[in-house]
Amino acid sequence: MKEEIVKKRIKAIRHQLKKKRINCLIVTNPAHVTYTTGFMGADSWAVITKGQTFLLTDSRYTEQAKRECVGCRILERADSESLAKAAANLLKAHSIRAATVEKSISLAGFEALKKIVRARLKSEADIIESLRCNKDSSEIAAIRSAASIAARALNQTLQYIKPGITESELAGMLNLQIRKLGATISFDTIVAFGPNASRPHHQPGKRKLKQNDTILIDFGARYKGYCSDITRCFAIGRPTAFYKKVYDVVEQAQAAAIKMIRAGVKIEQVDAAAREVIRKNSFPVYGHGTGHGLGLEIHELPYIKSKSKDKLEVGQVITIEPGIYIPGKLGVRIEDDILVTETGCRILTHKCPHRPLLAT
Amino acid sequence: MKEEIVKKRIKAIRHQLKKKRINCLIVTNPAHVTYTTGFMGADSWAVITKGQTFLLTDSRYTEQAKRECVGCRILERADSESLAKAAANLLKAHSIRAATVEKSISLAGFEALKKIVRARLKSEADIIESLRCNKDSSEIAAIRSAASIAARALNQTLQYIKPGITESELAGMLNLQIRKLGATISFDTIVAFGPNASRPHHQPGKRKLKQNDTILIDFGARYKGYCSDITRCFAIGRPTAFYKKVYDVVEQAQAAAIKMIRAGVKIEQVDAAAREVIRKNSFPVYGHGTGHGLGLEIHELPYIKSKSKDKLEVGQVITIEPGIYIPGKLGVRIEDDILVTETGCRILTHKCPHRPLLAT
Repeated sequence: MKEEIVKKRIKAIRHQLKKKRINCLIVTNPAHVTYTTGFMGADSWAVITKGQTFLLTDSRYTEQAKRECVGCRILERADSESLAKAAANLLKAHSIRAATVEKSISLAGFEALKKIVRARLKSEADIIESLRCNKDSSEIAAIRSAASIAARALNQTLQYIKPGITESELAGMLNLQIRKLGATISFDTIVAFGPNASRPHHQPGKRKLKQNDTILIDFGARYKGYCSDITRCFAIGRPTAFYKKVYDVVEQAQAAAIKMIRAGVKIEQVDAAAREVIRKNSFPVYGHGTGHGLGLEIHELPYIKSKSKDKLEVGQVITIEPGIYIPGKLGVRIEDDILVTETGCRILTHKCPHRPLLAT
Repeated sequence: MKEEIVKKRIKAIRHQLKKKRINCLIVTNPAHVTYTTGFMGADSWAVITKGQTFLLTDSRYTEQAKRECVGCRILERADSESLAKAAANLLKAHSIRAATVEKSISLAGFEALKKIVRARLKSEADIIESLRCNKDSSEIAAIRSAASIAARALNQTLQYIKPGITESELAGMLNLQIRKLGATISFDTIVAFGPNASRPHHQPGKRKLKQNDTILIDFGARYKGYCSDITRCFAIGRPTAFYKKVYDVVEQAQAAAIKMIRAGVKIEQVDAAAREVIRKNSFPVYGHGTGHGLGLEIHELPYIKSKSKDKLEVGQVITIEPGIYIPGKLGVRIEDDILVTETGCRILTHKCPHRPLLAT
């Protein structure tokens, strides 16, 4: 990560901390540790004081931290020392008498910290989560790359989609293509054949692909820490007229929601636009949200759901992913990643055609 | 999962709850939700009352829950309803006036629950975590299968280990073999070539394998929800005399620790046995723990580390994984999964030879 980016982020965080009269923030959420230090490993915390940023890590990650971190001091804790103890030592060494920890910490973690730290300890809903919501140009570029890699990986996987392949193997082939393109997966790839797709979070299993079967693939690549998230549905051979009808309605629902996207628009309106198309066509309306923010995490702010009180903002990257699910029959979901702009939006997943095989 | 297993588990949990005078336990840790209900999906809680077990899930998982759960009632919450709200509704509907939540919940989650629930809310360190520690025969069988699958997958991947393959591709090939054998990966596969192995948690990247290179692979399969975790190190072509020396010392260190394993033995002694061999041979002693429990989670109780105050117990399954890391030069770690018995131990990863290629 470039030093100027980190500096800008830390400055924005300190601005929030000042507003809330927080002297010292203990950052425990892994995505937030990455955001503030550039560190991509695990089991580490960041501590932001008025003058400095620290990364508390252990010997498994010290080499990696030295390579990845900019603008922060790396402190290595011993195997036998907990993160809470390392944080307590740091606060003591710098005579910090009051600190605030992110509320995403576990209750057990908070209590352990409270017991061990001499400083007054408060907690705060995630300041950094809100800041991360509006992506800078380097983040948008990373998500765009993650989307392009996912698109290429799916394209290269199409040749393996033949009767006989299992859901799990197909998921593994797609994951391998993502790796060959220099990325990793952003979450466990979902592959569902036929009626299995009616479970929105189906876990790919032993079911073999048949001729004229339908396929749902929900997958993403992670590149430079940033996620893409795409769902495509199609058939090998000839889909039924009913499947085609369902597919068309889902595509229309997605288009209706995307058409609404613009900075300043109420999120609930975007959500409603997609649901309305499905309702009007007398199909069951999906029980999940219409979409979610994505970035360093696969699910992050803002959530596109019916009861949202928020408005879209410039620089947010969200998915739009309506679906129709008919248990025992079929499931269709179409998902793209979309950047919110002043005047509308830009589709970051445009390199991944909606109908990767002609026959849908 | 078989109903009698679930019944036995719930009975053991209720016994603990009675001791601690807990009427109603809200189970939020995903592994514990699986343990108590059989449900393998995400974003769901279990609630254990005196007479019943409930699974709180949403429409994405309802079908799956119906297939997987035994002995519990499935309650579907709406998209717009939080888990906290669903739990609050349940408590209200059953006139439950005091409930206890697992301390592994986030602080934010606990506070949200506290705000919304009318019942008196307490928290408790994970009761279920301790119960899960001692595996029953079905759990041991699942881990054994997960280990066998991992061993076969590595064996089938050896043919692809040729100069030119990248770390990330090799990881992807291994993951694919695991899927072809009907399992999934239990954590992100680590593949490190040459000096990259000195970072114990190296993320596989673009580095290409060279002739006479050394390889570290840390991987595992997940089968029926249960994890295996194996590390193997070897060379293609001819390793240096120094690498061979390091390898031998790590293998001796692991053997020394395994020799100590028996129910009733102090964990710190097992840990010390491995470290002592490395120290005596004048190599740097690893900064990470000597091992960890594994089961539904890849890292769980008990942790094999120097400051442990616990003793080993019958039915625990642990890894033993000492290593030697010399930054810029090499890293060697050998890891096996081991069942603690009354009189000693059984190595569950015995089907995976320590030296998968002869040349190590």
